[in-house]
Amino acid sequence: MLTVYGDEKSGNCLKVRWTAEKLAIPYRWRELDVLRSETRTPDFLALNPAGQVPLAILADGRALAQSNAIIVHLAEGSALIPADSYDRARMFEWLFWEQYSHEPYVAVARFQMVYLGKPREALDPNLVQRGRAALQRLEDGLEETAFLVGDHVSLADVALVAYTRLAPEGGFDLADYPRVVAWVARVEAELGIS
Amino acid sequence: MLTVYGDEKSGNCLKVRWTAEKLAIPYRWRELDVLRSETRTPDFLALNPAGQVPLAILADGRALAQSNAIIVHLAEGSALIPADSYDRARMFEWLFWEQYSHEPYVAVARFQMVYLGKPREALDPNLVQRGRAALQRLEDGLEETAFLVGDHVSLADVALVAYTRLAPEGGFDLADYPRVVAWVARVEAELGIS
Repeated sequence: MLTVYGDEKSGNCLKVRWTAEKLAIPYRWRELDVLRSETRTPDFLALNPAGQVPLAILADGRALAQSNAIIVHLAEGSALIPADSYDRARMFEWLFWEQYSHEPYVAVARFQMVYLGKPREALDPNLVQRGRAALQRLEDGLEETAFLVGDHVSLADVALVAYTRLAPEGGFDLADYPRVVAWVARVEAELGIS
Repeated sequence: MLTVYGDEKSGNCLKVRWTAEKLAIPYRWRELDVLRSETRTPDFLALNPAGQVPLAILADGRALAQSNAIIVHLAEGSALIPADSYDRARMFEWLFWEQYSHEPYVAVARFQMVYLGKPREALDPNLVQRGRAALQRLEDGLEETAFLVGDHVSLADVALVAYTRLAPEGGFDLADYPRVVAWVARVEAELGIS
């Protein structure tokens, strides 16, 4: 059976849980508290020298890291990955964009406010500006379709909703992005979370 | 025919060129100079509102951004993507890691030194430390295999070699990473570059 090491406070880790649940893939969840350095113990470092979660240990014992790589692996052959070649490419475009242009701003602002106790006013203005740009990019991307790639939920939505739904905890006002608000609700309904 | 908008100074853009060349995919290259803001003209923004290269315009006229998404699309069904499911997942692990933990340090240090004229001593020590950590992760990843995923070149090597081979321009001394040096040469030979 699949084992997932994760921290429930981490959107990156929840992506893996949601994908497994949506696809009815049986898994064991091993909760590790990143803030208490439980990902830095010798036992965990033996599994993942990078000391990062999520980490998947597949049924055959082999390890796989990187949230988006794990969900792509779990969802292979499922409807969460578009069958059409161009749609699939667009899904990957969103997944890579998420790690480079969304998570480093939207998730990091939340981390600094919630876990480091920084007041909103103390956030780096560049961080805030780039976070807003990422949310605007999502708003624009939802102009014509219900989900990020066409009218069916895909891994692009799973990955992007993870920290977008938590953006208010990082001081971002989602009321500025009405299509994003409606999309978050749609994706949460698809994933059975809310 | 495929059209690629790119800047030859950008490793992200060269990934696309190398993949097309390796797979003998005919393409037109449209050179844009990022430093001269040629990606911010109205004409280009109409193609890609994000104003970023590389941008692929596929044969049917549809656009695709994000270097790693483009090369995955171009290489579908080729030997650059491992046929084995776990090996393919590991390739994606490297691709996502590249965008999150390698490019933002190794490429950014080079950009600041080469294009902004910053002396090595003026680089943010955190940037340098994280760049070194990324190079060490590559060194460790090459302990048992000739390429990042087993003994055949894959998109993981294409993506990671792009800025690793230029790391010395960002002040990193590759002599500290002998397996990386040998691997860069192997990948360059596979891609017919050097």
